[in-house]
Amino acid sequence: MKNEKITSREVDFAKWYTDVVFAAKLASYTGVKGCIAIEPNGYAIWEKMQEILDKKFKELGHVNVQMPLLIPENLLKKEGELVEGFAPEVAWVTKGGSKELEERYCIRPTSETMFSDYYATHVRSYKDLPMLYNQWCNVLRWEKETRPFLRSREFLWQEGHTIHETKEEAEKETRQMMEVYKWFHHEILAIPSITGLKTEKEKFAGAEYTLTNEALMYNGVSLQAGTSHYFGQKFSKAYDIKFANRENKLDYVYQTSWGTTTRMIGGLIMVHSDDKGLVLPPRIAPKQVVIIPIFKTEKVLQKCEEIKQELEENGITCYIDLTDKSAGFKFAEAEVNGIPIRIEVGERDLENKEITFTRRDTSLKMKVSLNENLAIYTKNLLKTIQNDMYQKALKRRDELTFEAKNLEEVKKIMNTKPGFIKADWCGDLGCEMKMKEIKGLKSRCILENAKLLTGKCVVCGKDAKYLVVWGLQY
Amino acid sequence: MKNEKITSREVDFAKWYTDVVFAAKLASYTGVKGCIAIEPNGYAIWEKMQEILDKKFKELGHVNVQMPLLIPENLLKKEGELVEGFAPEVAWVTKGGSKELEERYCIRPTSETMFSDYYATHVRSYKDLPMLYNQWCNVLRWEKETRPFLRSREFLWQEGHTIHETKEEAEKETRQMMEVYKWFHHEILAIPSITGLKTEKEKFAGAEYTLTNEALMYNGVSLQAGTSHYFGQKFSKAYDIKFANRENKLDYVYQTSWGTTTRMIGGLIMVHSDDKGLVLPPRIAPKQVVIIPIFKTEKVLQKCEEIKQELEENGITCYIDLTDKSAGFKFAEAEVNGIPIRIEVGERDLENKEITFTRRDTSLKMKVSLNENLAIYTKNLLKTIQNDMYQKALKRRDELTFEAKNLEEVKKIMNTKPGFIKADWCGDLGCEMKMKEIKGLKSRCILENAKLLTGKCVVCGKDAKYLVVWGLQY
Repeated sequence: MKNEKITSREVDFAKWYTDVVFAAKLASYTGVKGCIAIEPNGYAIWEKMQEILDKKFKELGHVNVQMPLLIPENLLKKEGELVEGFAPEVAWVTKGGSKELEERYCIRPTSETMFSDYYATHVRSYKDLPMLYNQWCNVLRWEKETRPFLRSREFLWQEGHTIHETKEEAEKETRQMMEVYKWFHHEILAIPSITGLKTEKEKFAGAEYTLTNEALMYNGVSLQAGTSHYFGQKFSKAYDIKFANRENKLDYVYQTSWGTTTRMIGGLIMVHSDDKGLVLPPRIAPKQVVIIPIFKTEKVLQKCEEIKQELEENGITCYIDLTDKSAGFKFAEAEVNGIPIRIEVGERDLENKEITFTRRDTSLKMKVSLNENLAIYTKNLLKTIQNDMYQKALKRRDELTFEAKNLEEVKKIMNTKPGFIKADWCGDLGCEMKMKEIKGLKSRCILENAKLLTGKCVVCGKDAKYLVVWGLQY
Repeated sequence: MKNEKITSREVDFAKWYTDVVFAAKLASYTGVKGCIAIEPNGYAIWEKMQEILDKKFKELGHVNVQMPLLIPENLLKKEGELVEGFAPEVAWVTKGGSKELEERYCIRPTSETMFSDYYATHVRSYKDLPMLYNQWCNVLRWEKETRPFLRSREFLWQEGHTIHETKEEAEKETRQMMEVYKWFHHEILAIPSITGLKTEKEKFAGAEYTLTNEALMYNGVSLQAGTSHYFGQKFSKAYDIKFANRENKLDYVYQTSWGTTTRMIGGLIMVHSDDKGLVLPPRIAPKQVVIIPIFKTEKVLQKCEEIKQELEENGITCYIDLTDKSAGFKFAEAEVNGIPIRIEVGERDLENKEITFTRRDTSLKMKVSLNENLAIYTKNLLKTIQNDMYQKALKRRDELTFEAKNLEEVKKIMNTKPGFIKADWCGDLGCEMKMKEIKGLKSRCILENAKLLTGKCVVCGKDAKYLVVWGLQY
C-alpha cells in the first residue's frame, strides 16, 4: 500500500526523497536557512551509527577528544590550500557580546587546523606517537543549495585526526580507516559502495591524496560517503608539528584525517527505501521489531509482553505499539518508519497457536507457530533481511554500472540512465573537465590495481593511466 | 607521594585545580581564547557521564534530537527576558562565505528559542503531548573570565526541553529531572549536593522558577551543577506553541528545560582530588582498575592477563600497563589519572600466591591471596571506595555548613572559612544585595519545606519567608 504523503520514486525522485524524510519524521526544516532539525527517528539512526563506528574506532586504538568550534583566522590561514578550499564557504564570527572582535573566528568547516595546533604543542618524542584522536561534533559550511542530510549548512560528523612517526604507518592508517568505512557500508548499512582514490581535482584541500567511499543511489547518482586523507608532512610543516625521532633528530610527523557524516542517513534512504517510506537494514535499525496487538485483550497483551521479553533477552531491539490508534494505522506507521519486522498478535491467531510476521523490505507475511523458538526465528529472519537488502542493492548497482570506451558511449549511457561509468583516463585535468560537459559527470574515484579497459583515454585517446569510475554526484 | 607538577591544595587552591587538570591530561588551553581542548582523559569522563545520564533520560521516556547551532536574531528576540539575559554574552555570525548576512545569527547560548520554534510547528493536539526531547551539544557564551571546565566560552552539555498538556505534568517533570541530577551527584559522582529553588534574582532568564543542584567544593565555594526550569506558558505564548486540548479548544503548552554540563568534571576534581592528582569515584571512572606487572616475565604477564579477563567478565573496566616505563613511573601515572584501584603483580608475590591492591583514595595497600575470588573482592572494594568517598565528601560538606542568625554571624563565618551558610531571608531583593556586600555572598538556593532558623530575616530583621543557603560561587 502506497503512502499518501509520499510521491512515487519513479515519478519524481527528488520529491520522493524529501517526502520520505518528512513522512518518516527523520528531520524537518527550521527557521535557519539550510539547517535542519534532526528529529527523534533520524537522530536514533545517527546514534546507532555512532555506537557501531565508535566501538570500531576504539578497538583500533583511537580515543575521543573535543576541540573548539571556533578557529582564529590567522591559525586557519597557515595551510594555504586548506584556507583556499574552505574560505569561500565558512561562517565568520565577528562580534562577541556587544564588542567587535579584534580577530574574527570562523566556525569549523573541518578541524585540521585545531588538531594541528594542538599536536604542535603536545608531541615531543617518537615515544608520544602515534596519537590517534577522533571527535564527534558539528561543522558548518555555507552551502548555497541544501537538501536534508545530503547537503546542509550545519551537519554532524566524526573527524579522526592522527599523527605518526613514519610515512608507512600514516599511509596504513589512511587505508585502514577507508576499510572501516567500506566495512560499515557493506556489512551494516547494506550498501555495496566502491572505494578508490580521488583525482587531484577532487581530493581534499591540503591532502597528498584522498581515498573515498562512493555509494550508488537508486536513481544512479553517486553519494560520497566517507573519505580518508593522507597529508604526509604538509600540515606538520605548516603548523610546525615536530618530534624527536629515534635518532634524536627533529622531524615532522606524518598525518591523516578521515570522516563520515549524517549524510549517510540520506544514503540509507536513497539506496533502500520505497514508496511506502523508509526501509532500514536490521543492523542499523534503532528498533528491529514492532509488536502490534490486534485488540488489546489481556491474553493478547500478555503474549506481546512475553515475546518482547524473549526477543530483548536475545539482543533484539523491539517495542510494543500500545497506542490507541487502529491496527491499520499502526501498520502504516511501522511501515513508513522502516521497522524491519512487524509481529501481529491477535486473539484468533493465538487460538491457532500462531502469530504473524511481516517483512518490511518485501512485505512478505508469514504465519509462525508459537512452538517455534521465536528468538532464533527472528534472529534468522533479521539476518535474511540484511542479506537480501544487500543483494538487492548490489544487483541494482551492477545494473547501473557501465563501461565506456569512447565519448560517444559515455553520452549514450548518460542519455538513457546515469550510473557508475567505468572508463580509462590519461590523468589530464583537461580531459576530466571535458567529461564534466556531459551532464556534469565527475570522476568518483580511480580504481586501484585495476586493469584498464582499452588502454586509451576515453576523452583524448592518448595513453591512459587510470581506470576511473565517473558519475553524477550529490 | 606528592606530584611535583601539582601545587599543594592548601597553599593555592586555584593553582592546584588547574595543575590537576593539566597533570591528569583532562584538558589544555588552545589558540582560541577562553576555549579548551578536552583531551582523551577528560573526554572519557564526559562519555561516561553521558552514558549514565542518557540511559536514565531514556528510561524516563525522553528521546534525543539535534537542533541548529545558529539562532536568527529575530527569533531569539521573541522572548524578551531570555534575550535580555543572554544577549550580552553571545557570539554573532555576521558573514557567511564572502557575503555579509542580511540577518545575523547568534551561536546558541541555550536552545529554548529553537525548541520553541520547532514545537510551534509540530504540535497540534493533546494527543501529541508530552514531547520529551533532549540534545547533547555544544553551546557558547562569551564569558570574560574563564577557567577550564568551570567556565569556558564553549562548553558541552545536555539540554532537555519538554512540552506538556498541563501545568501539573510540567511541574512534575521539572522536579523529576532535578531528582535525576541529585541522584547522579550523590550516587554516581559521590558528591553530596543540595537542591532547592533559585531566588527571583538568580533564576534562569524567562523561567517562572528554577530548581538548582548545588555542590560544595573542598575550599567551601559552591558550584551550580544542574538546573531545571519551569517555564509555565511564557515561552509557549512568546513562540505561539498552541494545541487543541481535550475540550477541543486551543491552549498554550506548559514547558520545561533542564541541563548539566562538562563543568561537572570540574566539580569532581574540586570535591575529591588531592595533591597527588585526580581521584575518581569508581562509578564514574572510565577505567576502574589498572594492572601493573612488576617485571614483565611470562608468568607475571600471564597472570595479569588472567586477572584482566576475570575482572572484565564481571563488568569491571581495567587495563594492563604494558609500556616500557618504570614501575614507579606507572604508579605515579595511575595516581595522577585517578584510577580507583591499582593491582601490582610481581614474581615474588606470585611465589607467595598473592597480589597487591592499592586504593587511590586512601593509598591503602592490601596483599590479597590468589585463592580469593578476585572479581568479588574487587567489586566489593570498588563499592567501599565509592561509599567512603561519598562519606568523606559529606563530612566535609557538613563541616563547612553553618547557620547564621544575624549579619555579624555571617561576617564572622566568612572571616574564617566560606561554606554553605544557612540563614533566614525575608524575600526582599535589597536584603539579597546586602548579603552580596559580604565578600560576594550569593543565595545558592531556597530550601523547600525547611523550618526557619529564627523566623527573622538575617539582614533586615523583619519576618522571614525562606530558609536560604548562601555561599560563594564559581
